[in-house]
Amino acid sequence: MSATGIQTVSIELQDRSYPIAIGAALFDDPLTYACLPRASSALIVSNTTVAPLYADPLQKALQGKYTSLHRVILPDGEEFKTWATLNLIFDALLQHGCDRKTVLFALGGGVVGDMTGFAAASYMRGVPFVQVPTTLLAQVDSSVGGKTGINHPLGKNMIGAFYQPLQVVCDLDTLKTLPVRELSAGLAEVIKYGPIADMDFFDWIEANMAAMLARDSVALAHAVKRCCEIKASVVAQDERESGLRAILNFGHTFGHAIEAGLGYGQWLHGEAVGCGMVMAACLSERLGLVDGALVQRLKTLIQKAGLPVTAPLLASSDNAGRYLELMRLDKKALGGDIRFVVIDGPAHASMRGAPDALVREVIDACCLRM
Amino acid sequence: MSATGIQTVSIELQDRSYPIAIGAALFDDPLTYACLPRASSALIVSNTTVAPLYADPLQKALQGKYTSLHRVILPDGEEFKTWATLNLIFDALLQHGCDRKTVLFALGGGVVGDMTGFAAASYMRGVPFVQVPTTLLAQVDSSVGGKTGINHPLGKNMIGAFYQPLQVVCDLDTLKTLPVRELSAGLAEVIKYGPIADMDFFDWIEANMAAMLARDSVALAHAVKRCCEIKASVVAQDERESGLRAILNFGHTFGHAIEAGLGYGQWLHGEAVGCGMVMAACLSERLGLVDGALVQRLKTLIQKAGLPVTAPLLASSDNAGRYLELMRLDKKALGGDIRFVVIDGPAHASMRGAPDALVREVIDACCLRM
Repeated sequence: MSATGIQTVSIELQDRSYPIAIGAALFDDPLTYACLPRASSALIVSNTTVAPLYADPLQKALQGKYTSLHRVILPDGEEFKTWATLNLIFDALLQHGCDRKTVLFALGGGVVGDMTGFAAASYMRGVPFVQVPTTLLAQVDSSVGGKTGINHPLGKNMIGAFYQPLQVVCDLDTLKTLPVRELSAGLAEVIKYGPIADMDFFDWIEANMAAMLARDSVALAHAVKRCCEIKASVVAQDERESGLRAILNFGHTFGHAIEAGLGYGQWLHGEAVGCGMVMAACLSERLGLVDGALVQRLKTLIQKAGLPVTAPLLASSDNAGRYLELMRLDKKALGGDIRFVVIDGPAHASMRGAPDALVREVIDACCLRM
Repeated sequence: MSATGIQTVSIELQDRSYPIAIGAALFDDPLTYACLPRASSALIVSNTTVAPLYADPLQKALQGKYTSLHRVILPDGEEFKTWATLNLIFDALLQHGCDRKTVLFALGGGVVGDMTGFAAASYMRGVPFVQVPTTLLAQVDSSVGGKTGINHPLGKNMIGAFYQPLQVVCDLDTLKTLPVRELSAGLAEVIKYGPIADMDFFDWIEANMAAMLARDSVALAHAVKRCCEIKASVVAQDERESGLRAILNFGHTFGHAIEAGLGYGQWLHGEAVGCGMVMAACLSERLGLVDGALVQRLKTLIQKAGLPVTAPLLASSDNAGRYLELMRLDKKALGGDIRFVVIDGPAHASMRGAPDALVREVIDACCLRM
C-alpha cells in the first residue's frame, strides 16, 4: 500500500470545508489528527464488530490529544440504526460530562457514521465530529458529504441532519478485515458513480472488478479516491440536495423499499442498492432514456461484484403495490409522487416521475425474471 | 389592540432571515401567511391545552393554502419534552405522507415550539416551519432565534439543533387566554432583557408591570416588540452561540438546575429562570461586579411579576452540591467548569466562572434566606 502514499480529496463548502485523507496506516497515526482543533475530551463511537479490531489503536493514537477519552460501543447492523441506539451515544456524552467542544469519532461503517454524525449534529445543538470509515461503502459514499440520520419504522434515514465532519480518514488497511459480503456491498456504491457521472471510471471498474474483489490495494485506493472526487464535486454544488445531489441516490429508491420491505438488516444497504440500480436502469430503458445494452452491462457488472440482481418479493399478493407503497415514503417523493433517479445518457442521470403501470412492469420483471 | 397595528421585527441571518409579526388578529388571518412558499401539505403541531382554543381557527386560515392539512396534538408540559413525544410528530408526518416541502406550524408555547422546530430540523434532514407562539414566554424568547430541542433525563435541551423558522407570528390576542401563572413565567424572560441589554427598558418594565399583569394590550405589544428587537440584534451577531448569545441565558444556569432537580414540569421554565436570575444577580454581587441596589431592584421586580425568588431545596443533604452537580451538565460548561452569565455593569452581561465555595454561598443564601 505504501506505494500509493496518502492522497487527499477536499470537500469545498466554505466554512464547512474539510479534507478526506486516503491511504494506508492512517487511522492509528497521531499525525493524521494533528490539524484538529484543541479540545479536552473526545468520544469514540464504534460497534461490536469493529471495536475489537480498531478501537484500541485509534484510542492510542488520540491519547496524547485529549485528556478525557471515552468510547461507546453500539450493536452492529442496520436494524439498530434507531433512536434507542442513538440515545446510547447521548447517554455516554452526558455521563462523561462531555461539552460543546467534545469531538466524536465515528469508527465503523455507514450505520456508525450516520448515527455518530446525527448525534454530533444534535448534542448540545452541535459538536464536532470525525469520520473514520472502516468499510468500502462508508469510504466511497456514506462518510462523505454530511448526510447523517437514523431510520424510522416507516422509512429509511427519515430523521437526520445535514452536518459535515471536520475530517474523513479512509484507511485502506481497514478493508483487509472486511467480510466479503460487505466488500461486495461497497462495490455497489463504487459502480454507481459510473453511469451517473463518469463512463471512463465505469470502464475502469469493469477492468478492475477482479482486482478489487481480491483487495488489491492499488485498485481499491484508486476506487476510493475517484468516488470521493465525484462525490465531492456533486456535494460542493448542492450540499442540501435541492437538485443535483439527488443523482447520488441512483438505485436507492428501489433499494430503500427492499430494505424497509424485508426488514432492516436482512439485505445489506449495498446489496439493496445494487439490485435497485438494476431496477432503476430497467425503468430508464422502458422510459426510452437509455438502450438495453447499457442496462445489460450494468447488470453484469453488479452480478460480477457478488451482488443480487433479482429483486425480492415483498408481498405475496400485489408485490408491486407494496413496492410502490414503500417508495411513496421516499424522501425524494413530492406530493405523493415518487421521483426516480434515471440514467438518461452516458454518465448522466436525472430525476423524474414515471407512471405507476410502468413501474409495476419493472418490478414484476425484476422480481421474476432477472 | 388595533390601535397598535401590526409591527414587524426582522431577524437578519442572510438566507435564513425571517420576519416576526406582532399584533392582534394575526394568526387566524390567511393574509398573515401569504408570503410563505407554495407547498402541498402542512402539519399543525399543538398541545392538549392550546389546540381546543386555537387549532380550528389556524386550520381555517391555512385551508386555502394547503391541499393536505393535518394536525398532531401533543401532551402539554415540560415533562413531555422528550423523544417519545417528538416521535409523535414524526409518526404523523410519515403517516400523512408528508414530503420535503411540508410546512410545520408550531402552535403553542415554548415546549411545542422547541419540539416542532427540532422535528422540522430533522424530518428528512430539514423541512420548513413557522412559529405561532401563544404564550408570552414563547413570544418574547423561545420562538425567536432558532434554538430547538428536547430534554434528556440528565439535562435540559441537551439534544437539538439551531434551525430557523420561516416566520414567527406573535398574536397578542392569544395572551388573553393565558393562565396567570404562565403570564408571570413569560414576564421572567421580559425582565431578563433589562439588566443584560437595556436599562431604559428595565425602567419601563418597572413602570408597566401592573399594566402587563392586567394584560393591557398596548403594554404587552411594546414588551413583545422590544424583547424581539433585543433578541434579534443578539442572534444576528451570534446565531450559534459561540459567544455573545450566551448572555440571553442570564438566570438559566441556576434555572435549569432547578427544573432538572425538581423534575421537569414542577416549576415552569419562566419560574425557574426568575429565581435563577436572583441567584445569578447575587453571584454577580458577590463577585464584586454589581452593587446590591441593582440586585434588590431586580429581586423586587421579579417578585412583583408573581415569580418565586426563594430557591427550592434540591437535596436534603448537601443541597448546594446537588446544584453544582446539575450545573456542571449545563451546555455552557467547558471541561467540567460551570460558566455563569453575570451582570457586570448597567445593561451589560458576560460569562465567567466562579469558585465553587462562592457559588455554594449564593445557593445557601438564596435557598434559605431570600
